[in-house]
Amino acid sequence: MSGTGPIEEELAALPLVDHHCHGVVTGDVTTRRFESLITEGEVWPGMSPFDSPVGVAVRRYCAPLLDLPRHAPAEDYLARRAELGAAEVNRRFLSAAGTEVFCVDTGYAPDGLTTPGELAGAAGGGAVAHEVVRLESVAEAVGVAGVEPDEYAETFRAAAWEAVGRPGVVAVKSVAAYRTGFDLDPARPTAEEVTAAARRWSATGGGRLDDPVLVRHLLWTAVELGLPLQLHTGFGDNDIRLHRADPTHLTDWLHLTAGTVPVLLLHCWPYQRQAAYLSAVFEQVYFDVGLTLHYVGPGRARAVLAEAMEITPFRKLLYSSDAYGVAEFFPLGALAFRQGLAGLLRERVDADELSLPDALRIAQWAGRENALRVYRFSDDT
Amino acid sequence: MSGTGPIEEELAALPLVDHHCHGVVTGDVTTRRFESLITEGEVWPGMSPFDSPVGVAVRRYCAPLLDLPRHAPAEDYLARRAELGAAEVNRRFLSAAGTEVFCVDTGYAPDGLTTPGELAGAAGGGAVAHEVVRLESVAEAVGVAGVEPDEYAETFRAAAWEAVGRPGVVAVKSVAAYRTGFDLDPARPTAEEVTAAARRWSATGGGRLDDPVLVRHLLWTAVELGLPLQLHTGFGDNDIRLHRADPTHLTDWLHLTAGTVPVLLLHCWPYQRQAAYLSAVFEQVYFDVGLTLHYVGPGRARAVLAEAMEITPFRKLLYSSDAYGVAEFFPLGALAFRQGLAGLLRERVDADELSLPDALRIAQWAGRENALRVYRFSDDT
Amino acid sequence: MSGTGPIEEELAALPLVDHHCHGVVTGDVTTRRFESLITEGEVWPGMSPFDSPVGVAVRRYCAPLLDLPRHAPAEDYLARRAELGAAEVNRRFLSAAGTEVFCVDTGYAPDGLTTPGELAGAAGGGAVAHEVVRLESVAEAVGVAGVEPDEYAETFRAAAWEAVGRPGVVAVKSVAAYRTGFDLDPARPTAEEVTAAARRWSATGGGRLDDPVLVRHLLWTAVELGLPLQLHTGFGDNDIRLHRADPTHLTDWLHLTAGTVPVLLLHCWPYQRQAAYLSAVFEQVYFDVGLTLHYVGPGRARAVLAEAMEITPFRKLLYSSDAYGVAEFFPLGALAFRQGLAGLLRERVDADELSLPDALRIAQWAGRENALRVYRFSDDT
Repeated sequence: MSGTGPIEEELAALPLVDHHCHGVVTGDVTTRRFESLITEGEVWPGMSPFDSPVGVAVRRYCAPLLDLPRHAPAEDYLARRAELGAAEVNRRFLSAAGTEVFCVDTGYAPDGLTTPGELAGAAGGGAVAHEVVRLESVAEAVGVAGVEPDEYAETFRAAAWEAVGRPGVVAVKSVAAYRTGFDLDPARPTAEEVTAAARRWSATGGGRLDDPVLVRHLLWTAVELGLPLQLHTGFGDNDIRLHRADPTHLTDWLHLTAGTVPVLLLHCWPYQRQAAYLSAVFEQVYFDVGLTLHYVGPGRARAVLAEAMEITPFRKLLYSSDAYGVAEFFPLGALAFRQGLAGLLRERVDADELSLPDALRIAQWAGRENALRVYRFSDDT
Repeated sequence: MSGTGPIEEELAALPLVDHHCHGVVTGDVTTRRFESLITEGEVWPGMSPFDSPVGVAVRRYCAPLLDLPRHAPAEDYLARRAELGAAEVNRRFLSAAGTEVFCVDTGYAPDGLTTPGELAGAAGGGAVAHEVVRLESVAEAVGVAGVEPDEYAETFRAAAWEAVGRPGVVAVKSVAAYRTGFDLDPARPTAEEVTAAARRWSATGGGRLDDPVLVRHLLWTAVELGLPLQLHTGFGDNDIRLHRADPTHLTDWLHLTAGTVPVLLLHCWPYQRQAAYLSAVFEQVYFDVGLTLHYVGPGRARAVLAEAMEITPFRKLLYSSDAYGVAEFFPLGALAFRQGLAGLLRERVDADELSLPDALRIAQWAGRENALRVYRFSDDT
Repeated sequence: MSGTGPIEEELAALPLVDHHCHGVVTGDVTTRRFESLITEGEVWPGMSPFDSPVGVAVRRYCAPLLDLPRHAPAEDYLARRAELGAAEVNRRFLSAAGTEVFCVDTGYAPDGLTTPGELAGAAGGGAVAHEVVRLESVAEAVGVAGVEPDEYAETFRAAAWEAVGRPGVVAVKSVAAYRTGFDLDPARPTAEEVTAAARRWSATGGGRLDDPVLVRHLLWTAVELGLPLQLHTGFGDNDIRLHRADPTHLTDWLHLTAGTVPVLLLHCWPYQRQAAYLSAVFEQVYFDVGLTLHYVGPGRARAVLAEAMEITPFRKLLYSSDAYGVAEFFPLGALAFRQGLAGLLRERVDADELSLPDALRIAQWAGRENALRVYRFSDDT
């Protein structure tokens, strides 16, 4: 970490709460699979995913954790990774993240991924993992199991309640941003509307839940469950229409659901300022800039955090890695967050715009305390 | 102010024209009231509005003006504020702003606020205050007084002309961004459309003017009045749909009204680049980044100004504080503007990208001369 | 160029490929004409276009190329420019750009402009120029020549094939962003739809092609031609509705046309992050931040490039000047690109976030190699 001082030390030692992440692949991965896991695009001929900001960051910051020199070539990196084996690689990277609590989205796992417990085990040091239930997966399981259209609403509701009743579940998540975008009718759909939509969905074979009425219904059902609701926002793969994932489209829905559950906007780039605005004017809104942190790399994370924090109440910003698939993203996300936040806080303390005690408090809040508070974790979790 | 040199000295001594602000509370305020006045959100349990960039800036930059140490705790700050009393506090902060001309929006005053004259009096040193007429308030007063739908257009027009004929009125303002957003039909509504809309409005009891036809009609009426038209743009409280307050939605309307009145886009964050674009391609468009300046604090104001000034003709950027309610925002907005602008101009002069005389001219224009020109104030106002 | 070292040296010496530009005025220009050519707005009373970031940049960086001191006054600059004459001025600026390949949009030339060959000749040093065919110009020529509505599609297709068959043509371009924006129905229009639209267009006298069906048809015809497709994106004059030129509105169309031709998003500001996102998730998408570079000037180009490169695969960013009319924009765009990119790469190398060999490779790719690859130029072009 560049620069040293009390803020850097505080952040380096802070046990993070990573309030949104995924499991990592348990087995060894091929070069092609690894490359596909370090891009939100695909592996295209003549363009290695290593030739990107995240690829450079992996070679710079992760290579030394595999006993390689900084900036090791991609081929050396992949060879060493294969030599150590998945278990050892995952252990090294997860333990290097310095994360104490993982909230793991278990609803998207086309690859063979670690369970939350396995993830925490690889991290060691007493780390604990909680589960985040992805509601689209619950709804689609209801569809696959077969349900009469007029029973969809109740069956989905029951399945959602059952899912959140499982031990260790601390939040729900929706990927409405991917399925319809946020420019939805904000009103709760009527029973008749839901039945009609379920009939359409069923008639087309069920599968991917992307009917606007069913997505609205899912969001309103989420509110009933009483748990914090995580919403994918902004940046993702090409399945998203980015402009429809601008969270300010949720404004009317946020008014209608005020006083119910905390809403946690995930990732947000390039709409971090829009997310900040919502967090400043709605009591229930929180956000993070996860995913972006490792994609831009530690060197640029500070600039993204600076935009994210311009007007944001200090109790409204959280940390997440949004790591998926490769364990590298856990230490990389954590490092980008610690280094980026330390850099901007130190700059303000050095300019005497911010007192050191205030800076330390902001660091603790963003990296840990805000999440403990929102998710009602006890301090020893 | 960090850094010293001719640019800092020029800006520190420059008598600002604050082309858009509000009055301040005349009486003493409770802790809760003060906290509610330093956020665009509300006061939420367990989250003090002091724990935010603007709260930190108040403790850092305003505390010394109350004889407290920099970064004084919030409780000490509020105690000292109460001890001095509203009149003395207002006098200290307003005189510290170094502002020579205030253009005061008098149309929103749920609190007991200073009149423009009282505001200028508190500033002392010969400061003068002008009035900005908020047109929605004029229209709603017409509605409250009762009007036949087919007489609404003419009655509102007459009331608007009467309002702008009052001594000291220099501009009109619209909060169309709050009421409908800017994605309106740009055309002037017909008399029949206005009457029909007035009938609907009247049937629902009048009150808040948010009918799209009446808002369009208001904007077109504004154009007739011949005075500069201020438009709230971007950032505000949660009554706004931020994405609809992107000023580029006004493009067609700006084409239709070209050659009539100056249009001043207020605040603009996070759409400062969009506002800059409009100011670069429409002769009549000007803008500022008021409100944002004190919400982000002096330390970040430079970054926001840097985006705002990327492509902007130097005669198109103005200064405003958009201070409301608490007098702190006058010196804080002024400091953020002076320090942010000085920092970025100095950096460019140091890199020999800009000559010192050019830098000084840009500072004078943005802080003062551009407003004098748009509002046709004589140089001694 | 500020700063020196291997990255600066590499970029200073790199023969650029300017993959999108226009010709320059061949004759002498009046002061008013010159001023109108250095703004995307117009020349307004009391506001010289020199009083802007680009005006300052011209006086700072171009004046020395005319043997004037840095920051020369505008009047001295224009007098010296007139004294030297257009041919000499063009020769000096174009040769100073250090550009080896020019891809010249020949479809917009209200002024008497250099041909591609004349442009390359003025640059000297063996520079070569290719042609980019603007498809709206082809379609409008078909309209002017007269065509039956049911023959429009085939006639335009034939004309487009003929145009791209001319020697030296390497790409096509569309200004759909200006005509309708990108929020179009993404589907290929049917023959019946095209005929009906052509009938409407013809009935209104032809002229400017801005019918949404015909613009969609143009984009789909472009795909058939097999050449890289350049799309104006974002910033331009006031004929654009900026929010409709956000390239993420193209997402569905990019899905439908995947696997066909490379799509090159031009300019992009203020949507450089949106363009970066598309380039990261669609194999066929590339982009640049041309036009903006000279409008913001070398000092701010680094910040714009930093946003543009946050998540961007290194093979996806290209260089263009988008210079038009005045030769100044060739060296200014090139300088802004070289200096901005060098500054940000050097900063990362200095912080040991990036290795020097990687930095040099990124510079070569962005300034030259990526364009050679997309346009399939041989390395000696």
